[in-house]
Amino acid sequence: MTELTTLIQRTRAAAISLAKLPSAVKNNALEAIASALEQQSAKILAANQEDVAAAIANQLPNSLIARLKLDANKLKGMIAGVRDVMRLDDPIGDRQIHRELDHGLVLERLSCPLGVIGVIFEARPDAVTQIAALGIKSGNGVVLKGGSEAVHSCEAIAAVMREALASCPNLDADLDVDRGAQVSPDVVQLLTTRAETIAILQMDKLIDLIIPRGSNQFVRYIQANTNIPVLGHADGVCHLYVDQAADLEQAVAIAVDSKTQYPAACNTIETLLVHQAIAPEFLPLVAQALQSKAVALRGCDLTCKILNKTIDIAAATESDWSTEYCDLILAIKIVDSAASAIAHITTYGSKHTEAIVTQNQAIADLFMSDIDAAGVYHNCSTRFADGFRYGFGAEVGISTNKMPPRGPVGLEGLVTYKYRLVGNGHIVADYTGANAKAFTHQDL
Amino acid sequence: MTELTTLIQRTRAAAISLAKLPSAVKNNALEAIASALEQQSAKILAANQEDVAAAIANQLPNSLIARLKLDANKLKGMIAGVRDVMRLDDPIGDRQIHRELDHGLVLERLSCPLGVIGVIFEARPDAVTQIAALGIKSGNGVVLKGGSEAVHSCEAIAAVMREALASCPNLDADLDVDRGAQVSPDVVQLLTTRAETIAILQMDKLIDLIIPRGSNQFVRYIQANTNIPVLGHADGVCHLYVDQAADLEQAVAIAVDSKTQYPAACNTIETLLVHQAIAPEFLPLVAQALQSKAVALRGCDLTCKILNKTIDIAAATESDWSTEYCDLILAIKIVDSAASAIAHITTYGSKHTEAIVTQNQAIADLFMSDIDAAGVYHNCSTRFADGFRYGFGAEVGISTNKMPPRGPVGLEGLVTYKYRLVGNGHIVADYTGANAKAFTHQDL
Repeated sequence: MTELTTLIQRTRAAAISLAKLPSAVKNNALEAIASALEQQSAKILAANQEDVAAAIANQLPNSLIARLKLDANKLKGMIAGVRDVMRLDDPIGDRQIHRELDHGLVLERLSCPLGVIGVIFEARPDAVTQIAALGIKSGNGVVLKGGSEAVHSCEAIAAVMREALASCPNLDADLDVDRGAQVSPDVVQLLTTRAETIAILQMDKLIDLIIPRGSNQFVRYIQANTNIPVLGHADGVCHLYVDQAADLEQAVAIAVDSKTQYPAACNTIETLLVHQAIAPEFLPLVAQALQSKAVALRGCDLTCKILNKTIDIAAATESDWSTEYCDLILAIKIVDSAASAIAHITTYGSKHTEAIVTQNQAIADLFMSDIDAAGVYHNCSTRFADGFRYGFGAEVGISTNKMPPRGPVGLEGLVTYKYRLVGNGHIVADYTGANAKAFTHQDL
Repeated sequence: MTELTTLIQRTRAAAISLAKLPSAVKNNALEAIASALEQQSAKILAANQEDVAAAIANQLPNSLIARLKLDANKLKGMIAGVRDVMRLDDPIGDRQIHRELDHGLVLERLSCPLGVIGVIFEARPDAVTQIAALGIKSGNGVVLKGGSEAVHSCEAIAAVMREALASCPNLDADLDVDRGAQVSPDVVQLLTTRAETIAILQMDKLIDLIIPRGSNQFVRYIQANTNIPVLGHADGVCHLYVDQAADLEQAVAIAVDSKTQYPAACNTIETLLVHQAIAPEFLPLVAQALQSKAVALRGCDLTCKILNKTIDIAAATESDWSTEYCDLILAIKIVDSAASAIAHITTYGSKHTEAIVTQNQAIADLFMSDIDAAGVYHNCSTRFADGFRYGFGAEVGISTNKMPPRGPVGLEGLVTYKYRLVGNGHIVADYTGANAKAFTHQDL
């Protein structure tokens, strides 16, 4: 057995104990982590400066350095995030079914942790505290692997968190909690090498869920190389369809927001679909608004014909319809009906978030029922597709899987359930054959 | 595009229409199917006789012929099953979240069908009606592939069902339903060749879920050869642990039921774990009871030592602990503690259903929290792990996946959800920056 396997098994054992701890103990551990992060801020910022200096020396992109860099304010935000998770409802022990199958034979379905979750992310050191907090709150062990650019930052943060757990003060004596039962530091493990990442993808007996956060290519690599369930999405090819019956001013504002509010986000639109009847009026308006935000446009033939006297626009090619630009680029296509818009989205969309602007309720209903996506939006920006904006208090990822959990996923994505059946010697033979007893099936 | 792809696309299109139909229309279609099956009973039984005659001529196993053979009574049961599904609550359109994010910006999470479900099963022709009924009720298209032994039966049943849908009478005029909106016969497709089965495993754009019903080897083949989510289980290596504090008489009855009530079922136990303190007293009792039901025993060294003066028992080898016998064979192992029993189950179990017999509540609690399985049972038979016994009214399969749906899965396994967000020109830019609006996050 390798050293890594032993390490993950320790996390698994710690997670089994964690699963049984009451909310008060888990919250106490989170408060200890938050306090320790406050007290050790200087140490964390110093480690981060090492990473940033190396990134600058290695001429890494500015956008990466911006995500990597911590300052006192960002660290405060991370600590506030840990306390936010503390205040969320405990997702464990929720009784979803409570049913008498027969006298003295009682079935319960109770939410329980998944076990151990592997989270693989890129440069952001703030992910370490967020994921660890979500893991502890939901009773799961977490194995973290950050980007190599952030290794000193991640190591410093993980060390502070593990020390905080190791020396976590006991709860007040008036809380009815076993003083010996504390959150083990082993519930949080940090990996630092790429070889370890690749190795854990094979540990389907020890790790229950992988959450990859990063580029499409990175997520696709993970999905293709593990039997462990993966929560996340590779592509975010989202569309906005501006219908014949749209309020055009509203449509312009929603198009600009959906494209430019954060171009690298997965819920940003990549293609704008426009009904032909309003294209001559709408396209110049939206094109001007987008260009004033530095968006480069690529249009279908008809779009280019309408726009190219006044606006700089390139011809879109087939590959544009399936590209997630992650940049200030937008493809535009004219369609002859809502049905054509739906057909285009069905062909090229990634089942993430799809929006329509229209004042026609019947067309909106058609769009929202026939589009197969985690989110279907009417008269609002696709950028709302986010766990915090949905009011989940935290987001563990956005899933484009068809099976639940789907869309922005809060703590429920880290939780499964167990059926517990308690009897008093009950056997199935009594419920079959000529003198079969009947089940009562009474919900309690 | 192949003929098969065109066929599945027709089913997909039919499923999109089906997804929008109200319960009354779906139930009307199910009643039409039930009536047609009654009227065409003779035709179905004649087709089945062809299959049975061929199976006898080909010297197929008696157990297979028993599953294959239909008679008037079995057919009545199948028809009653269709009407049972009709009476289940409609799982579609359930509003799981209804929340104002801000004034005029309302989020809903609504249950919706998965889309198209591929169900691949072995000899049983009764699966055709059951799965088609569950598919229609849950708004999904179903692509069915039965065992080649049952091809005439399946074809006859599918033809009757599709004709019933094609000529389904309209609903009473007083029901507020569009008379033109009916369930298309294309929602049910029957495939008949192995090549088609293999081909649909690659159609991850057209099929949303595969449900394989058959042998471990068959399910494992499916799991290894598709990117489509698979609902089901390969192994069912279930255990019964008889604790030091067990009521021995109860433990004998539960052991016999869990092993012999239906030996080929996935929820049947394969290994009996016995606490060493009670082994000398318990083992002779249970061994005698099991042998009177023709169960062959394989024991660990200590078990053989205790039993081999009085009882015929073979020595268990390492491979016995991970074998699903699907037969009247039981492995027995003596353990020194509940913790050892839990460790054994963690190593060899398949996360299906695990049971303990004990009068000690603390030991029961430990077992039920530390065992990672879809079902954890106390003082009752593992054979209760079943959707009908749980009161789900129908079972689409039993899942040993860690992520939900887990355990016996009813209609909810054929359902996912969509987020619908409706605004009035809402954009995310208004909720960020210096003058950011706040979300209200009020549940409605």
